[in-house]
Amino acid sequence: MTIMPEYVPPDFESLGLAKAPIIETQSAPDDGVVPANYHGTSNHPEYLHMGNGKWRLVPESRMDAVIVISGDNPEVVEARRVRKGDQIVVGRTENGEEGIYVHINGFEQPSQAVDKFSFRTRGTRETPFSRCYDDLYRVLRHDREHGHIVWVLGPAVAFDKDSRDAMQGLIANGYCHGLLAGNALATHDLEAALYQTGLGQDIYSQTLKPNGHYNHLDIINEVRRRGSISKTISELSLNDGIIYACEKHSIPYVLAGSIRDDGPLPEVISDVYQAQDAMREHARKATTVVALATQLHSIAFGNMVPSYHVMPDASVRPVFFYIVDMTEFSADKLANRGSAQAVAILTNAQDFTVNLWNNLKG
Amino acid sequence: MTIMPEYVPPDFESLGLAKAPIIETQSAPDDGVVPANYHGTSNHPEYLHMGNGKWRLVPESRMDAVIVISGDNPEVVEARRVRKGDQIVVGRTENGEEGIYVHINGFEQPSQAVDKFSFRTRGTRETPFSRCYDDLYRVLRHDREHGHIVWVLGPAVAFDKDSRDAMQGLIANGYCHGLLAGNALATHDLEAALYQTGLGQDIYSQTLKPNGHYNHLDIINEVRRRGSISKTISELSLNDGIIYACEKHSIPYVLAGSIRDDGPLPEVISDVYQAQDAMREHARKATTVVALATQLHSIAFGNMVPSYHVMPDASVRPVFFYIVDMTEFSADKLANRGSAQAVAILTNAQDFTVNLWNNLKG
Amino acid sequence: MTIMPEYVPPDFESLGLAKAPIIETQSAPDDGVVPANYHGTSNHPEYLHMGNGKWRLVPESRMDAVIVISGDNPEVVEARRVRKGDQIVVGRTENGEEGIYVHINGFEQPSQAVDKFSFRTRGTRETPFSRCYDDLYRVLRHDREHGHIVWVLGPAVAFDKDSRDAMQGLIANGYCHGLLAGNALATHDLEAALYQTGLGQDIYSQTLKPNGHYNHLDIINEVRRRGSISKTISELSLNDGIIYACEKHSIPYVLAGSIRDDGPLPEVISDVYQAQDAMREHARKATTVVALATQLHSIAFGNMVPSYHVMPDASVRPVFFYIVDMTEFSADKLANRGSAQAVAILTNAQDFTVNLWNNLKG
Amino acid sequence: MTIMPEYVPPDFESLGLAKAPIIETQSAPDDGVVPANYHGTSNHPEYLHMGNGKWRLVPESRMDAVIVISGDNPEVVEARRVRKGDQIVVGRTENGEEGIYVHINGFEQPSQAVDKFSFRTRGTRETPFSRCYDDLYRVLRHDREHGHIVWVLGPAVAFDKDSRDAMQGLIANGYCHGLLAGNALATHDLEAALYQTGLGQDIYSQTLKPNGHYNHLDIINEVRRRGSISKTISELSLNDGIIYACEKHSIPYVLAGSIRDDGPLPEVISDVYQAQDAMREHARKATTVVALATQLHSIAFGNMVPSYHVMPDASVRPVFFYIVDMTEFSADKLANRGSAQAVAILTNAQDFTVNLWNNLKG
Repeated sequence: MTIMPEYVPPDFESLGLAKAPIIETQSAPDDGVVPANYHGTSNHPEYLHMGNGKWRLVPESRMDAVIVISGDNPEVVEARRVRKGDQIVVGRTENGEEGIYVHINGFEQPSQAVDKFSFRTRGTRETPFSRCYDDLYRVLRHDREHGHIVWVLGPAVAFDKDSRDAMQGLIANGYCHGLLAGNALATHDLEAALYQTGLGQDIYSQTLKPNGHYNHLDIINEVRRRGSISKTISELSLNDGIIYACEKHSIPYVLAGSIRDDGPLPEVISDVYQAQDAMREHARKATTVVALATQLHSIAFGNMVPSYHVMPDASVRPVFFYIVDMTEFSADKLANRGSAQAVAILTNAQDFTVNLWNNLKG
Repeated sequence: MTIMPEYVPPDFESLGLAKAPIIETQSAPDDGVVPANYHGTSNHPEYLHMGNGKWRLVPESRMDAVIVISGDNPEVVEARRVRKGDQIVVGRTENGEEGIYVHINGFEQPSQAVDKFSFRTRGTRETPFSRCYDDLYRVLRHDREHGHIVWVLGPAVAFDKDSRDAMQGLIANGYCHGLLAGNALATHDLEAALYQTGLGQDIYSQTLKPNGHYNHLDIINEVRRRGSISKTISELSLNDGIIYACEKHSIPYVLAGSIRDDGPLPEVISDVYQAQDAMREHARKATTVVALATQLHSIAFGNMVPSYHVMPDASVRPVFFYIVDMTEFSADKLANRGSAQAVAILTNAQDFTVNLWNNLKG
Repeated sequence: MTIMPEYVPPDFESLGLAKAPIIETQSAPDDGVVPANYHGTSNHPEYLHMGNGKWRLVPESRMDAVIVISGDNPEVVEARRVRKGDQIVVGRTENGEEGIYVHINGFEQPSQAVDKFSFRTRGTRETPFSRCYDDLYRVLRHDREHGHIVWVLGPAVAFDKDSRDAMQGLIANGYCHGLLAGNALATHDLEAALYQTGLGQDIYSQTLKPNGHYNHLDIINEVRRRGSISKTISELSLNDGIIYACEKHSIPYVLAGSIRDDGPLPEVISDVYQAQDAMREHARKATTVVALATQLHSIAFGNMVPSYHVMPDASVRPVFFYIVDMTEFSADKLANRGSAQAVAILTNAQDFTVNLWNNLKG
Repeated sequence: MTIMPEYVPPDFESLGLAKAPIIETQSAPDDGVVPANYHGTSNHPEYLHMGNGKWRLVPESRMDAVIVISGDNPEVVEARRVRKGDQIVVGRTENGEEGIYVHINGFEQPSQAVDKFSFRTRGTRETPFSRCYDDLYRVLRHDREHGHIVWVLGPAVAFDKDSRDAMQGLIANGYCHGLLAGNALATHDLEAALYQTGLGQDIYSQTLKPNGHYNHLDIINEVRRRGSISKTISELSLNDGIIYACEKHSIPYVLAGSIRDDGPLPEVISDVYQAQDAMREHARKATTVVALATQLHSIAFGNMVPSYHVMPDASVRPVFFYIVDMTEFSADKLANRGSAQAVAILTNAQDFTVNLWNNLKG
């Protein structure tokens, strides 16, 4: 399939690494503490020389973690989850000289003209996005059956009727295998289901409703009184929206707590590192990520997602990461925090969601 | 039709203005110079007391101009176009005490809740735009037959294949009665027609073409050599795009010069005040304005457009003004320059254009 | 002192509220659940009619909380902290008809011209900020001795040498009584103290250091190994920066966890609602808040800060809230989340901090 | 001096270009039209092989122009200024194979780490700007005596009292040899001199003055009545501001017309291509450019400025180009239009100007 670029693993012979050293490890000195010379992982494919010319691709990597070797198995673990005595890979070179090889050009790339002078070398809101959309439509159609599509949503998607309907449609039709968000997205979406408002503003007409500033508190109180979102949906006969669609179609969602939360809803994970662990479960499985209108969650999840995924048949494919935001700053910041491979589509998340659904619902 | 709010003219009796003074005028002291106490116009409906309780609605107003009385007729004229001896309305009150009444609430407005505390009182990218789109679809369908729709375009629309196609479709199907832009929009659109690039970047795939930085200069040279856009379209068999559609369907367009221009194309008006005069022709006729991705042209045209239009049957309707941009700053700046009635849709102009065409083409 | 506007409490007689009903309460049905008709608080001064014409100003209010009456004392409490059986004020009017009066114009305001047409009605980056700075200098000088100044910091302040030095100077000289931030600010600031980098980039020269992406992980590991920031500062002889200044001058700081965190540092509060509680302690005391370059923390703290503060002598003064950010969107979003009284200064947090220190250090 | 990097011309021998072809020329077929294979210039140093191994550095280049050879002299000319029969250099290679060599790495650059994975590879508002400021201070001190400093100003600088004062100070003290702006900057600055307002808003207190929307029209009318800015300054005894400083210290300024202009002031050049010619005079002389808060003028001037300047002693130095704006988009757009060498400082133009003056006035 043309959307899936071929992966070319490193040829260690021709790289002159046939006789590279074997990786070294040291013991973690304490729980949550790593040896001084630990090797920090990136989101790129990394290979470890296990001996005898056998290089092992580290699965499910992420940036800013360490590699624990248990038996013959490398596992990528956040330093805070390391236990005293764990064997941690050490070494800070990336070219194989310590047995660690970081492979950054595994996927074929179309070559670009490199004139000494040219225009439009930077992606901005003026970049043409037609093909990005078409690629994304193809990817989503493919991964609906053959991948794990993760959506990372800011609250703006729930503030608008059409985009909320579109997101509901996408979930109901198999284009979402996991949803990551915060208390606000869920609250505003449930507020819309009950009152057709977001923070008191009508999600269609923009009208501010009288005493509308109570609406989000009221829905939170309704849910807290009942103890769960699913029970509230059932008892209040809510029947539309993003969370409703997840519940109905048994799509797992992670609601991570933040200091901005009202409530919170009972399902929100109040400990942010437990929330990270829950998000990481999706990061390990993700084949496509669509992150909309949230810098916090986009960067958080970007930190945990590898740029590649090892399929059950051991083939390697890219993880497609789309960031949709209104500003170059958000896309640049994601790149500055290490997710340089993310494809930015600079537009309003409302239009983006509607576009996707218009195309995919057919 | 529900999209067209009713206009309620001022009731001068109940305003206590039955015996208001008649307007005064003074002679312009020189060409392009106005008397010190001149009355400066706004974009709102303004009424002049002509005597005997007869109040006259000034037609085709604009902000920051003056009113010249010739015979019984008030005309709104930019100060630079005043001629020595013209009779200029003087007086700086707006409540009738000098015979000038500015009428700011002529069109019915839905009333809003006014709680002492509320959220979401400011329009931002998170505002729901579903209804804005629906309203705009209705307005465009109505004004296609019964109005004068003016598009004000920045170059971004021509940089993307889908949005350029959409804009072509809108023009070809009657949704544009006048197009205002600069040399860049026309140049990049013609570049796309000839090379499928914008400043050397493929308008579909984002690829930078080898030596692509010549493309816009080459198309300019082609047009300059032939002396006109229409001749170039014909001789080079160009057959798509925004300018092509205007030429084919005889939609008038104004290309205003700017200091950023390469070339320019022969049709570009190099004197900016002559360009203003050409734009003002469309401002006088406009019933709906859609301004996309250009601060310069949006504010320029916003300055000249009244907020109301007097129809041939003397009825008064609003002029709908939509500003589409990526930033709150652009919408705020338009308001800060006086066009406070403009409806802002904060999104990428590419998606916006595609949305419109998807809805209206059916 | 001219910077401190006089507070005029409501005159309940002239408001016709002499015989207003007394407030009603209902019992909380469960822990963390409030009765259906609970009164939700705003950040404005709110008065409760306790009977016999005695109206009580609710102290230390915040938005989106409830009022618990214990004995004669109203306390503003987040719904999640309500205990079963607590007596909760009910009623959703704000004009006294249920014994609750929200007072939004207690502080004198300079009156503004209200022409029917005017420019520049919205605050943007083009708004003149000279007086805002001068006012803020005066406020900070005053509150250094007579108030509680809270800084809310995004990581950008630690990324630049001059602004980091400036912030250190402000803290060391008494202009900060509490600092609220996240793991990132503290980590990057400590990284700068040890390596002169922020995420591997030199904080003066912008140079990316070789293997610099290890620096923040290394400093985190150093702190985690030792168990505390203060011990690390001592053992590594760190002697500059924001956190160093807080530690040296015993300024309390709250580091709230987020899902973007690496590490975290041991002092970070991983449960976001515990973090809210810690922040709320400062919100109750705050007289001036300066929030820089962080939407998350600014809105979070904005939610908890009253717009007024009751001094020990029972006089009422405003809480000054300054939001410093690069975009109108951030300022608008803060207002859309209820903190409409915040003064926005639209600029880079680096320059802002340097400006303050240049002026105040003298 | 350490701020001035050394220029290393190409070594044509070692490049294997000792026997490169001599440049070719063709006649311009008409006024304002160039031969099909014309060579388009960049802002980089370009060398032409004139024969016998003699390579000539084209002086005062700019992007998107052509090279006219008269006698032995290459001159860089905009296509619109070409006359029929002019000898135009042809060829579109840049490596010498047609006698044209574009030299992009003439100035020494500090080398950067190139890890396979790193953070902060893109410049944003979070980039540390301390050193940029320090470099700029040094450059301005140097070029005050030994260069030609050009300021490109948007109107925001005149909207704020402190920044307007700062700009006045910089001009009065030799830090400006030419000022480029539009009608708005000059109008608002003169409005401030007469009324202490900008578009009716007090430049210190932010207060909107009653009928303040007349102020800019009134000052324009005052100037138009008298026929010149200088006469108006004298007769109205204006004695502060940016334009006042230019007039007093005989600093040339170019006011380029735009379609947004009211008035205009008599000094404004209404034909944009004549305005370009006037701006180009400064581009030819410029050694440092500081462009503030104007996308239109910044990009326009960026198009015309070479990245290098040939000094009277034939040495070659860089032209420093600083772009100061609030958004990454503006900096990226400047780069996307070819001025990739510009140094972006992302902040408010008000603070920037104040910073400069605080440092340089001492």
